[in-house]
Amino acid sequence: MTTATPFHGLVPPVVTPLGEDLTVDVASLERLVARMIDAGVDGLFALGSSGETVLLDDAQRDLALEVIVKTADGRVPVIAGAIEPGTARSVQRARAAERLGAQAVVATAPFYVIVGPHEIERHFRSVAAAVDVPLFAYDIPVCVHSKLSNDLVLRLAHDGVIAGVKDSSGDDVGFRQLLVQVAAEGLSDFATLTGHEVMVDSMLLAGASGSVPGLANVDPAGYARLHAAVAAGDVAAARAEQERLIQLFRIVDAADPATSAGMTRGAGSFKTALHVLGVIDSNAISLPLRALDDAESGRVREVLESVGLL
Amino acid sequence: MTTATPFHGLVPPVVTPLGEDLTVDVASLERLVARMIDAGVDGLFALGSSGETVLLDDAQRDLALEVIVKTADGRVPVIAGAIEPGTARSVQRARAAERLGAQAVVATAPFYVIVGPHEIERHFRSVAAAVDVPLFAYDIPVCVHSKLSNDLVLRLAHDGVIAGVKDSSGDDVGFRQLLVQVAAEGLSDFATLTGHEVMVDSMLLAGASGSVPGLANVDPAGYARLHAAVAAGDVAAARAEQERLIQLFRIVDAADPATSAGMTRGAGSFKTALHVLGVIDSNAISLPLRALDDAESGRVREVLESVGLL
Amino acid sequence: MTTATPFHGLVPPVVTPLGEDLTVDVASLERLVARMIDAGVDGLFALGSSGETVLLDDAQRDLALEVIVKTADGRVPVIAGAIEPGTARSVQRARAAERLGAQAVVATAPFYVIVGPHEIERHFRSVAAAVDVPLFAYDIPVCVHSKLSNDLVLRLAHDGVIAGVKDSSGDDVGFRQLLVQVAAEGLSDFATLTGHEVMVDSMLLAGASGSVPGLANVDPAGYARLHAAVAAGDVAAARAEQERLIQLFRIVDAADPATSAGMTRGAGSFKTALHVLGVIDSNAISLPLRALDDAESGRVREVLESVGLL
Amino acid sequence: MTTATPFHGLVPPVVTPLGEDLTVDVASLERLVARMIDAGVDGLFALGSSGETVLLDDAQRDLALEVIVKTADGRVPVIAGAIEPGTARSVQRARAAERLGAQAVVATAPFYVIVGPHEIERHFRSVAAAVDVPLFAYDIPVCVHSKLSNDLVLRLAHDGVIAGVKDSSGDDVGFRQLLVQVAAEGLSDFATLTGHEVMVDSMLLAGASGSVPGLANVDPAGYARLHAAVAAGDVAAARAEQERLIQLFRIVDAADPATSAGMTRGAGSFKTALHVLGVIDSNAISLPLRALDDAESGRVREVLESVGLL
Repeated sequence: MTTATPFHGLVPPVVTPLGEDLTVDVASLERLVARMIDAGVDGLFALGSSGETVLLDDAQRDLALEVIVKTADGRVPVIAGAIEPGTARSVQRARAAERLGAQAVVATAPFYVIVGPHEIERHFRSVAAAVDVPLFAYDIPVCVHSKLSNDLVLRLAHDGVIAGVKDSSGDDVGFRQLLVQVAAEGLSDFATLTGHEVMVDSMLLAGASGSVPGLANVDPAGYARLHAAVAAGDVAAARAEQERLIQLFRIVDAADPATSAGMTRGAGSFKTALHVLGVIDSNAISLPLRALDDAESGRVREVLESVGLL
Repeated sequence: MTTATPFHGLVPPVVTPLGEDLTVDVASLERLVARMIDAGVDGLFALGSSGETVLLDDAQRDLALEVIVKTADGRVPVIAGAIEPGTARSVQRARAAERLGAQAVVATAPFYVIVGPHEIERHFRSVAAAVDVPLFAYDIPVCVHSKLSNDLVLRLAHDGVIAGVKDSSGDDVGFRQLLVQVAAEGLSDFATLTGHEVMVDSMLLAGASGSVPGLANVDPAGYARLHAAVAAGDVAAARAEQERLIQLFRIVDAADPATSAGMTRGAGSFKTALHVLGVIDSNAISLPLRALDDAESGRVREVLESVGLL
Repeated sequence: MTTATPFHGLVPPVVTPLGEDLTVDVASLERLVARMIDAGVDGLFALGSSGETVLLDDAQRDLALEVIVKTADGRVPVIAGAIEPGTARSVQRARAAERLGAQAVVATAPFYVIVGPHEIERHFRSVAAAVDVPLFAYDIPVCVHSKLSNDLVLRLAHDGVIAGVKDSSGDDVGFRQLLVQVAAEGLSDFATLTGHEVMVDSMLLAGASGSVPGLANVDPAGYARLHAAVAAGDVAAARAEQERLIQLFRIVDAADPATSAGMTRGAGSFKTALHVLGVIDSNAISLPLRALDDAESGRVREVLESVGLL
Repeated sequence: MTTATPFHGLVPPVVTPLGEDLTVDVASLERLVARMIDAGVDGLFALGSSGETVLLDDAQRDLALEVIVKTADGRVPVIAGAIEPGTARSVQRARAAERLGAQAVVATAPFYVIVGPHEIERHFRSVAAAVDVPLFAYDIPVCVHSKLSNDLVLRLAHDGVIAGVKDSSGDDVGFRQLLVQVAAEGLSDFATLTGHEVMVDSMLLAGASGSVPGLANVDPAGYARLHAAVAAGDVAAARAEQERLIQLFRIVDAADPATSAGMTRGAGSFKTALHVLGVIDSNAISLPLRALDDAESGRVREVLESVGLL
């Protein structure tokens, strides 16, 4: 469970609190980050999918990253997304992240533009070559509509192009196979982070070096306990904590499915929970998403109560 | 075949010629645009998918649009893409397009971020409200991974949110049904533009108000003849011209499939053909795509010769 | 528009009328077939998707085919589906069809079982080798979840494995390209049949040799007029008839979308229309589909009235 | 880990050995079954995907099931697939399975025919009502192209329609959530079986009641040791055995990807491994699949050697 890189353990993807005018709410973001660090997270992932990065402009992104880096204040490392459809803009964002103090950057496969494996590989190699900090590959086919093959991930790992992978592919079978290959091929420094909130115990037990669960914005202490239980070899305690978090994850069903979809339900419910918990001042979220309304917030509150967070 | 909007007839999506340093090649772009206007196109679509817009940064986009507007010089209207994953950035691009002289803007459904019909509708309404020029909806599920329903398109049309649709959905069945509904519901000003290079005659005969074929970069005169033949009621001539253009479209098979995919093969072959024809100085293309190599360019040349363009 | 095979022109896929006990209603089927022949169809496709073939057992299939062949009585040729997940059972059905008097058989790519292009090609070659009548390839990715490439279709055509293709792929772009290749490669005997109800005029004008519209069960005379108009070069009349049929096709929206999907809405509405028109005795349909209820039948009736069929 | 139904623990889906004439090889099947029972499996799943059931005709299916039931001889229960596109034929197969001695039947969602949740639910309810033995729902979207929602599975469980689920969905996130709901809702008799070869330890530790790994045809003793380790609380031993089996699973990469796909590579490599191991007489497989050739068999042999099976 130890790796040579500083990026292992619990590394939540930080949501980006917004005011009603949809600009970054600095004070709320500071509280959110401080609460996670106090809870014992091992790192922070800024400007990821949960952070609404593709919905923000560069000024808002820079501001959010600056606040996160400043609030972390060296206590935990910060990874920052450089998530753009193509290479040139991803490079610009990677350089901005490096300049603003991120200790690593994260890129996805290109999106919108139709690509194949060769274009994807060229993208990662180009972004990595443009910065001095390590690059992580973010495998998220539900957003970019292509899947990183294990062959590609391993080749980029061996070539020193990427320092790790964040797996949000939904393909736990493939990720499990990757874990075995990473070990078999002696890539002991390569970080293998699962992004799936409900499978963290399983993947840590299977050898993953860490997790990046969006739900840890809401309950960082719970995920910290889960990681600690696995590290202590207490499988039963890990499973119990994981199952409590699976119950908490039902907040994503709070929004009316007749008028909401996708990230309105996901990041929208995380923000609503944080608002209900008093951590952030508003559950505002970038267009075209919408904030959960009062009835929906009430359902989020019920779930929070049911798992002991309220 | 006439509409009240100025956006009908042949409106090619302009590719963005680049130098070897991957910045906009102004002189090549001027030649490209002038050649299309001389060939008789009815409008120009700047900063679309074929124009690599999602791969360019704002400075390059602004430059490309300025050159196109200046070269068009009011002879034909210019539509410009405002294609970004979310609403705020699409609004920024729409306003930039308006400021730089575009007579209309074009937006897709949001992408990367997971959305449903309500989020998509909110996106179009927000972009339309932010500018004074008309908005077109660009239906391109192969890039954004959601399909605009005919119900949504018709509702936005009736509400004056969108002035037309560019259909690159591949769903010609749905587009044909849309054409019938547009006529049945009295939306005579609503522009219905097909983006499918090989179905232009069919869709014009079925009542579409125009076409936006990427291949018209390569052979604008051919598409102009095709439009003229349909307007003249000469179905046989239209079909013959269309079939010649279908043969020309085989340039997209020139790139080695073992090392290229998607837009490397599409826009990459258009640029290569324009380079072989002497219209633009280089077939350079934005990363992560790659330019076609000499062997591949040779295959493009053969196709150009076979249809009489060389 | 003429081909050397007898399979061209209007070849509706015959629905299979059922009694309330879900066995074949012979009398209704006889009336249905007689009505189509009287309306001027050029052939009949038995045991296709619209005919619920995958939902019927062999005894019911044999009965349906016997009734169709007997009622056709040599006036028009009968093609019969041999549609099974794998090769051995498709061969059995192809032989049964041949034995029962079908003049050609139709097979899809394998389904349920996961296959690639080599497995698909082996399937068609094996079925063709097992019978003496011609084989048609049925391209219907929405059911089998793989698409026949034009390269494969053309190779099988040149090798004499298949005598034609029924295109229900939704990929009209690809079908248009196929039509051009079929002509360019001198395959003048190869039948190219479109299965898309709303694109028949376009595809006939583009050179398709015929159509297989499920909606022609409901209005065979309309489709016969459409074919005749194209044959006569009267493009305006063809388009007007096609647009009337597009309005008729809205019967597929009659079933409540909250409690129905897919083929319940498709073949279910065709059967309901035929029942409303008095052609068949019941709109019963195989499980797991359900028959449209009275309210839904009322909406079908309204559409029938709106296009002049009632 | 105990359930009230007899269907828990290790329940491999039995491949169907064939002779060169593609009929069931009875002697090989008897050896295969005996070897698995000797290795300690808890049940057998006949006529599943790995058993090529959709590629076999009814006579071959009946024969295979008879041999399996007879060879099992009551030592372990036998579940049998009733996997057909629609309801009537699934009912026929379910009744045949019951008649031939299966102690439960397994059905998938309908396939080929386009359906939604209501049609799927009707299918399971109809099949369950037709037999006296328990019904299992087989969730395999890669074959049937629809996913069973957890809501549907839980509703059918509460209503006594299904006795368990076999999850081959690839959606381990959803399956983990299902496990939590099954426990939370007091469905202690409901069987939850994972079909994913590489995630058996994780899912057993998460509370699944058993596994149905196709790879257990090749190494039933390995999977039996894995189950035993989990039952004994020896997480490290379970993981080590699982990782050995993940290495073994690489036999599915033995077939040349340029000329094989899907089930040729999957069940084809299982059969080849069994042939190399001397368990079955031939690696013949139903058309349109193909048997692995000598070079490919050599690669299978290498993998078998690397994990100690040879």
